[in-house]
Amino acid sequence: MQASEEAWQNPSSPHRAGVRVGLRLKAARDKVAMVLDAAVDRVVFTGGATESANGIVAHLARTLPADVKVAVSPTEHPCVVAAIGANFPRERVVVLPVDSNGVVSERAVQDSLADGTIKAVFVMAANNETGVLQPWNQIAEVCRNAGVTYICDASQWLGKLPGAGLGEADWVFCAAHKFGGPKGVGFLLRPKAETGFRVRPGGSQENGQRAGTVDFPGIAAMVAALLEVEQTKVLHESERLRWREAFEREITRRLEGVKIVAAPAERFWNTVALIMPHGENHRWVARLDKCHIEVSTGSACASGKEAPSHVLAAMGIPGAEMRRVIRISAGWATTAQEWQELADALVVVAPETKPADGGISI
Amino acid sequence: MQASEEAWQNPSSPHRAGVRVGLRLKAARDKVAMVLDAAVDRVVFTGGATESANGIVAHLARTLPADVKVAVSPTEHPCVVAAIGANFPRERVVVLPVDSNGVVSERAVQDSLADGTIKAVFVMAANNETGVLQPWNQIAEVCRNAGVTYICDASQWLGKLPGAGLGEADWVFCAAHKFGGPKGVGFLLRPKAETGFRVRPGGSQENGQRAGTVDFPGIAAMVAALLEVEQTKVLHESERLRWREAFEREITRRLEGVKIVAAPAERFWNTVALIMPHGENHRWVARLDKCHIEVSTGSACASGKEAPSHVLAAMGIPGAEMRRVIRISAGWATTAQEWQELADALVVVAPETKPADGGISI
Repeated sequence: MQASEEAWQNPSSPHRAGVRVGLRLKAARDKVAMVLDAAVDRVVFTGGATESANGIVAHLARTLPADVKVAVSPTEHPCVVAAIGANFPRERVVVLPVDSNGVVSERAVQDSLADGTIKAVFVMAANNETGVLQPWNQIAEVCRNAGVTYICDASQWLGKLPGAGLGEADWVFCAAHKFGGPKGVGFLLRPKAETGFRVRPGGSQENGQRAGTVDFPGIAAMVAALLEVEQTKVLHESERLRWREAFEREITRRLEGVKIVAAPAERFWNTVALIMPHGENHRWVARLDKCHIEVSTGSACASGKEAPSHVLAAMGIPGAEMRRVIRISAGWATTAQEWQELADALVVVAPETKPADGGISI
Repeated sequence: MQASEEAWQNPSSPHRAGVRVGLRLKAARDKVAMVLDAAVDRVVFTGGATESANGIVAHLARTLPADVKVAVSPTEHPCVVAAIGANFPRERVVVLPVDSNGVVSERAVQDSLADGTIKAVFVMAANNETGVLQPWNQIAEVCRNAGVTYICDASQWLGKLPGAGLGEADWVFCAAHKFGGPKGVGFLLRPKAETGFRVRPGGSQENGQRAGTVDFPGIAAMVAALLEVEQTKVLHESERLRWREAFEREITRRLEGVKIVAAPAERFWNTVALIMPHGENHRWVARLDKCHIEVSTGSACASGKEAPSHVLAAMGIPGAEMRRVIRISAGWATTAQEWQELADALVVVAPETKPADGGISI
């Protein structure tokens, strides 16, 4: 809000007010580079994760030799999956194997690179539907050793765990609203050598790399949110992880038949995907909503289309179970008490979510 | 700001708070449709004009038959020119003739369509560097009669003149920050029949037409700004036009050799491009800046690259004159008194902008 008041001018303008915004933009870029351990000229401010993913995938499609392939985790976000589908023919795309937790192992990446045809690997830092963490730092190392480009979607990671080390990936991207910033703004890191990169054609903003008027107020808000997370919030991660674990122990004890998706895997402190013992997920969402608890049926990015989750499908979860999945997301403001209230509410609403005749559930 | 506080939830979420934001999003869409006289299902919210232009051009490249051509005004914004360059081979692009004011006449469009090879026409509603208005309503009619798609960049128009009738163009797009909304948000109108359109691949937001988390607070601010302009500001246009004209008469009288770019053409009430009688434009910008008057050397979208303006070049303005062009933009808050102060300041700084030896200017 402060930046909207006092730094609304266009940093591309030649007058001093514009130049001053340009200097503040530079300072914002330095801070992002610092958080991710990356060279500052790798940072490109964008309109968010979807725009970044689209720009990166299109750039790789333009610049990779026509006979090489790209490998992609089947659990990537639609903005990656759909961009690859739009830019690469099917025969150039290798889907990486995942285990039953949706994890792409370091070994799986190593094996896929063995024959030398794959030159780019997409594995997100953590999954948006399940909270499952990928071994992205090991994958980055495997790729670097093999001379293969590694693209890391850090949209879920930033804001929940520290960003340090993400600069080890060749390409990184994220969206501000996932870590407390406004919607419609984000950033990416490009490899230092990719000086010909541009997110999209148009004006020459961001050193020719991202056409479109620079949204400095949005960027300022994003960087303020990122620094707040990094400096004051991620320190509380282990405490929050214990709250989530306590909730999971309690709900499995009190609600017979409930399952935690990817229970054995390393997962965020804030996300739990539950397979409910009965009743379609929309029934649970509606009943909890009346208890003033807002949960989701999966990714909001996909919930409009009501298709089964490609993430859960890749993990081998059967269709019948997928329709009973609810996703719980906590924030830094969520208390231990609220996790407890959620467990209580799930137990209370459970009878109401049962289909009346035990058969068709609506 | 109000929407950021009370409607920050994701309109794609299944809980009631998400649904409520979805309803407010629908109301915002209705208002945009009303302002532009367009069917509501034509409205797609986007991240701004560059994103919209890129999406539209890429869609036309995907869907137009491979043997048809597109026609484009040489004065279009870089986000259109560069997107066409990236999506269409040169032999499929016809550059429309403009007169010395940069105007594409209805007749020029009609002539270009005569042989039937052109199936899409790009002519902006008004130019960002000169303020020159195009006869977009006639062009829309010519295109409609010929069964040709008309794409109208209304980024400059909205906020300065009424949006009514813009829905007559097949495709329309704009950016909120040009009419008082925030940066990083905008909208487009698509043709009613183009139901397969999508700005970019990814999640299924905006009915599958624009992937990426919906920035409802940004959209709410944009629509509030648009309605304010339409309901309270554009009414003052003729008064503001007189102020601009008075300024132009005065400056040509008091500063010998100064020229108004596109003087005979219909132009916005707020924009004047001046060819100064001497001294490179950066000297003028710097001297005026010290008088607390912020002017530009041209489009901020291009000013980073310091290349001569493609708009002025298309109008036949010689290179030496182009380097002496400054662009003045008023806002609705600009007063008649401030236009007067600008004229005074230009006269005062004129001697300081002369190169010392009358030769090389720096």
